[in-house]
Amino acid sequence: MQETAAKEQIKTNLESLNEALQSGAMQQVRRILNGLHPAEIGRLLESMPPSQRLFVWEMVDEDDRGEVLVQVGDEVQAGLIDNMEEADLLAATEGLDMDDLADLLVNLPDAVTRQALDGMDHQHRQRLEAVLSYDEDSAGGLMNPDTVTVRADVTLDVVLRYLRAKGNEIPSTTDSLFVVNRYDRYLGILPLSLLVTSDPNLTVADVMSTEVEGIPALIHAHDVAKVFQDRDLISAPVLDDQGRLLGRITIDDVVDVIRDQADHSVMSMAGLTEEDDLFAPVLPSARHRAIWLGVNLLTAFIAAWVIGLFKGSVEQIVALAVLLPIVPSMGGIAGSQTLTLVIRGLALGHVDRSNARLLMLKEAGVGLFNGIAWSLVVGIVAGLWFSDTRLGTIIGVAMIINLLIAALAGVLIPLLLRRINIDPALAGGVILTTITDVIGLFAFLGLATILLL
Amino acid sequence: MQETAAKEQIKTNLESLNEALQSGAMQQVRRILNGLHPAEIGRLLESMPPSQRLFVWEMVDEDDRGEVLVQVGDEVQAGLIDNMEEADLLAATEGLDMDDLADLLVNLPDAVTRQALDGMDHQHRQRLEAVLSYDEDSAGGLMNPDTVTVRADVTLDVVLRYLRAKGNEIPSTTDSLFVVNRYDRYLGILPLSLLVTSDPNLTVADVMSTEVEGIPALIHAHDVAKVFQDRDLISAPVLDDQGRLLGRITIDDVVDVIRDQADHSVMSMAGLTEEDDLFAPVLPSARHRAIWLGVNLLTAFIAAWVIGLFKGSVEQIVALAVLLPIVPSMGGIAGSQTLTLVIRGLALGHVDRSNARLLMLKEAGVGLFNGIAWSLVVGIVAGLWFSDTRLGTIIGVAMIINLLIAALAGVLIPLLLRRINIDPALAGGVILTTITDVIGLFAFLGLATILLL
Repeated sequence: MQETAAKEQIKTNLESLNEALQSGAMQQVRRILNGLHPAEIGRLLESMPPSQRLFVWEMVDEDDRGEVLVQVGDEVQAGLIDNMEEADLLAATEGLDMDDLADLLVNLPDAVTRQALDGMDHQHRQRLEAVLSYDEDSAGGLMNPDTVTVRADVTLDVVLRYLRAKGNEIPSTTDSLFVVNRYDRYLGILPLSLLVTSDPNLTVADVMSTEVEGIPALIHAHDVAKVFQDRDLISAPVLDDQGRLLGRITIDDVVDVIRDQADHSVMSMAGLTEEDDLFAPVLPSARHRAIWLGVNLLTAFIAAWVIGLFKGSVEQIVALAVLLPIVPSMGGIAGSQTLTLVIRGLALGHVDRSNARLLMLKEAGVGLFNGIAWSLVVGIVAGLWFSDTRLGTIIGVAMIINLLIAALAGVLIPLLLRRINIDPALAGGVILTTITDVIGLFAFLGLATILLL
Repeated sequence: MQETAAKEQIKTNLESLNEALQSGAMQQVRRILNGLHPAEIGRLLESMPPSQRLFVWEMVDEDDRGEVLVQVGDEVQAGLIDNMEEADLLAATEGLDMDDLADLLVNLPDAVTRQALDGMDHQHRQRLEAVLSYDEDSAGGLMNPDTVTVRADVTLDVVLRYLRAKGNEIPSTTDSLFVVNRYDRYLGILPLSLLVTSDPNLTVADVMSTEVEGIPALIHAHDVAKVFQDRDLISAPVLDDQGRLLGRITIDDVVDVIRDQADHSVMSMAGLTEEDDLFAPVLPSARHRAIWLGVNLLTAFIAAWVIGLFKGSVEQIVALAVLLPIVPSMGGIAGSQTLTLVIRGLALGHVDRSNARLLMLKEAGVGLFNGIAWSLVVGIVAGLWFSDTRLGTIIGVAMIINLLIAALAGVLIPLLLRRINIDPALAGGVILTTITDVIGLFAFLGLATILLL
């Protein structure tokens, strides 16, 4: 019950906004927008065609704009930025967290970035430039340079007084303090939960935890996500190659990485990217997708070419033409199952060279088993349909062959692509289908040509 | 450079474990396992065939077993539990966080669950039973009932003294305290960062934040994930329908939901489930996947049946047989792109009834554009190949028709499936392919029959 209610409520935002827009009730639109969090506004904007989006964008509260820009996908973000004045963009950068600001700045026009940097005090600018110097997809690019550091030799009482003196300068999401030495080298972490539960006469060194290792600034965001998931971290320090503290990563930044990573597989397998705007105009969308269709057309032409090789056989036995789709299509489906399993295994770190052979044996076993089981069904149906036992046998044997090949290809293709640094989620499916099409058609038509003619 | 190093290191765990296992160096195996975090051990276990998995499991430190069991997928977990003694299972439940314990208990034999509950003090058991009474996939099932609560009218100084008195009874992941009234109704949240930076003479009511709304215990985990992402929360209170505090959800629990959700799409599209064991034995795996192959075989037979209707035409013009794969396959690819986009849009809350028509128009536009562009290519190639302009024209027109239908089906199918509560990620692809196969073949062979014969 409550679940449906919650879903209804989420839907209602978009629906009621659309109603208000259609009836021209602009006050209503503004009221809806003002009641939402930036991420929700971002989602609404992503659910609209570009023209309407720009119209609604004008009505988003100025204070929220920066946060909304950070939340939307790249393509939608670029569209909004293109239509904003420099002054508005500059205003949008104000009040953002350092890490969000860094993400946004790289996508803004140079003039705005320069002005934003010029308007900061020296310390903030220096910190921001540190983040900007790292790749967006690295630990350094993810980090927030706003950290609170303490020395190991002071007492907790001193720390508490220091924090009170700082007051609301402390970032609100702070859940731990970092302990550094005089050279800014990271020594350990002091969770606020330990600070408030320990005897204030103890020193930081007595209480701090040294278990949380620093994350090197240069490692990839995906590896950061892995570390956070493996160690159930809420926040972790980011260090330079000298072990000096540069900033901290909190898990909410990592959540975006994890979601994007999973999204990436789904979208890549269909030749899309996770940054695609759902409501991008027709022409750019069509152009984006045309390449993928072209690649797949090549696969289809290769299949047609194989059939062409056996034109004579098909001309003599028309049943071959009728049964043509079955063997390649079953191979494609079975192969995709293996492929998906392996791509996911690679992403989760379950598959590498040391267990690939084992996996191949297992998948070949599955392919053989299902090949035999379904080839019986297909063989019997085809044999009865065309009252031809030999035809039934041929399609059955072709299917076993193709399902075996599909299993092997499903394991090998992603491993090989990975080794030559091509994304298996993007290219794996097309290559697999080409192989299962060609092998399936060759096996079926080839056997028929040899045995029936 | 560092990125590669990190990857190498991650791989090395599995590789070096395999090497140690093969050379029989059991001390080495133990040493590797003891150096890892439970989630990492879980990943290693998931990367092994079942027999080896059980062997390695015996060498996992007893204190880590509970945490490892919580981390692995359902299928792997069931295999490990089946092979453990009751006493070992009971030992594994000790020292777990309440929310993890609740997840594990529901999968243990009843006798063990009862013993585990009996061994707890009254308060802990009551809290745990509260979690167990909720569905695993609801906010109540995700929550950890271990919370620290304070009253609104006390001063921060009192709170600090109370926390110090409690000492390490406070859960280590506590980042905020919850403010409740005497009836346990939730009033607001007091982040530790505010507690330590504010004047100790202020009262909790002066400082607490009332912005974080409580999450109803009955809402679905997916909606919890949405709220956390929308509001950038680190932790949030879970309330019963009277507004009473039941527990808290922290973002690390939500991360698993987000990852599983994304995984679910990828796996469902290939007819798999995200809990599948990569190294499940051949027979059960084959049986799991056989159903999916059977469903898809039906699609292939429907395509064959359509071709059978035009047997006469194919017999007279063998070029039709050769070109057969092209139109259905292009329709399937184009339709899958739209389908993937819409399924993701539904999952992210970007698509609902109020913008479905707009999306359909846009996708139809994309389909038409790509249909025309690629039909020219296909038409010219086919025309030249068989020196037959009319054949080229026919395949081109069939392709435009099929790409248009594919676009409409790609939008409509997931929306309709969603309305009748069938998971679009699971069933969408098969239904779409059936439609694009049938329409593609009918258009191509039908037009050819009318115009060429």
